[in-house]
Amino acid sequence: MTEQEIKRLVSEVVDSLSGEMTLNLALKLTDAVKQKADEMGVKAVVAVSNAAGNPVSVQCMNDAYIASYDIAVNKAYTVAALKMPTSALKSLAAPGGELYGIQFTNGGKIVIFGGGVPLYDKHGTLLGGLGVSGGTEGEDTDLAEYGGKVFSTLL
Amino acid sequence: MTEQEIKRLVSEVVDSLSGEMTLNLALKLTDAVKQKADEMGVKAVVAVSNAAGNPVSVQCMNDAYIASYDIAVNKAYTVAALKMPTSALKSLAAPGGELYGIQFTNGGKIVIFGGGVPLYDKHGTLLGGLGVSGGTEGEDTDLAEYGGKVFSTLL
Amino acid sequence: MTEQEIKRLVSEVVDSLSGEMTLNLALKLTDAVKQKADEMGVKAVVAVSNAAGNPVSVQCMNDAYIASYDIAVNKAYTVAALKMPTSALKSLAAPGGELYGIQFTNGGKIVIFGGGVPLYDKHGTLLGGLGVSGGTEGEDTDLAEYGGKVFSTLL
Amino acid sequence: MTEQEIKRLVSEVVDSLSGEMTLNLALKLTDAVKQKADEMGVKAVVAVSNAAGNPVSVQCMNDAYIASYDIAVNKAYTVAALKMPTSALKSLAAPGGELYGIQFTNGGKIVIFGGGVPLYDKHGTLLGGLGVSGGTEGEDTDLAEYGGKVFSTLL
Repeated sequence: MTEQEIKRLVSEVVDSLSGEMTLNLALKLTDAVKQKADEMGVKAVVAVSNAAGNPVSVQCMNDAYIASYDIAVNKAYTVAALKMPTSALKSLAAPGGELYGIQFTNGGKIVIFGGGVPLYDKHGTLLGGLGVSGGTEGEDTDLAEYGGKVFSTLL
Repeated sequence: MTEQEIKRLVSEVVDSLSGEMTLNLALKLTDAVKQKADEMGVKAVVAVSNAAGNPVSVQCMNDAYIASYDIAVNKAYTVAALKMPTSALKSLAAPGGELYGIQFTNGGKIVIFGGGVPLYDKHGTLLGGLGVSGGTEGEDTDLAEYGGKVFSTLL
Repeated sequence: MTEQEIKRLVSEVVDSLSGEMTLNLALKLTDAVKQKADEMGVKAVVAVSNAAGNPVSVQCMNDAYIASYDIAVNKAYTVAALKMPTSALKSLAAPGGELYGIQFTNGGKIVIFGGGVPLYDKHGTLLGGLGVSGGTEGEDTDLAEYGGKVFSTLL
Repeated sequence: MTEQEIKRLVSEVVDSLSGEMTLNLALKLTDAVKQKADEMGVKAVVAVSNAAGNPVSVQCMNDAYIASYDIAVNKAYTVAALKMPTSALKSLAAPGGELYGIQFTNGGKIVIFGGGVPLYDKHGTLLGGLGVSGGTEGEDTDLAEYGGKVFSTLL
């Protein structure tokens, strides 16, 4: 075995044991979401956070909206910070909703439209969050949900 | 197709896509918008950004609203950052709209009422944005759209 | 006389009487500073504020430093807000200086190196400030002082 | 040729012509810097910006300092915004230096210690910036300079 092969193997074993968001996992997830975005014709920013809501990886596809960087990073934060998809905040944070106003409480970091999903391990423990921005809300929501499904196959 | 043919095609496409917002262009556009504002009796702030959303020129007509400086600069940012007129964000970002909440996600820099338009070159490439603030929303929207039309004649 | 010529004349008379920073004055000053910067090979951002410290005009010469926008605007603010050149704050705000710490008190808007000068009318009344950023500190200081001298000839 | 091969070719051609930071370039550079950091035992955050100072890619190696995310992103911004390595700002922005105070003028985004280098194309045009944070200042500086050298081989 080459050194590189050993490194990859060890990395995979560590990922399967640690119960933490690793850069390796985040990059695999990002690749899958980028490929899907490409198929859909969306130029996305893809952000992955850890369970603390801190970013692990952010990638901006060529010619993505400038505004999408902050939005994707904040979506990845929001879902880790509140343990729910950003789409679930849509009605909760709407005027008249139970949590109307939560979009103002955390320094502009709470995103209340679709495109972010929390990421769990096999035991239902939160490992982090995925935030996607660049398409319509429907496209971003689809991409995030697709990413959530892919993530469970990576563990 | 051979590899060489593909390379040539791509090269041609890329070559056709050049052009940047210059100060010279920004000032000509600003002059046109100021003259129109003057005719309309509006004391406007006129801001022009480049494709990255960074300001290139800002001018405040005498006795313009103090608040209009930030609004015009942020409109010019918004249209470059999201590649749409700020008037298009009005319904998208209204309560119940697809992107309600986007006005909070980017540090207060996303403006969701009329008065900003993206500026394109002849090939449809984004060169920057125009933000106008100082009149009613209708007046600002008219001035921005007028500026957008003038801009295409300046290239 | 054409209508345009009359407008220009009236504008000039108003400028000479009003005791206020007008856009017209700010643009003339900016043109002079840009021309000098061009001669010196400096790609400058030139900002002019009124006596309230609010920006009246900002222009970014092609290929100026991105960081220079904030610095020039903040220099123009600083000199109006403290009624002294930014170069005078250099020793005052240095560790051990009388005002060490003033660089932290105003949300990062106080600039403590050269390139900003207050602008006065013939009676010594503050009309606004000039902020220049883009060259070395020496170049910015020279350009700002040059602008200060030019300004007195424009009144 | 398969679609994937064509895509790769197009990507390579666009990279070679466009004079812009692409995600593809940013990821290749990031991989090289991460591998070097790994060899040095540094857990780094590696950020790459475009010429406008906006982030294109950010990756946090496992167990990197939480603070390193902001530092790396801001280093990548600083070097694009001021067109110099952050190590060059060290003496300029030290108390007594020409630009002491510049660390406060741009909303806390100017980093004045080593670990960031501007990235140029073959013609000397700025394409973006690299920011590395996670080791000692010496290690971050070494990693950034290594990245700068690698970048020129990627074009």
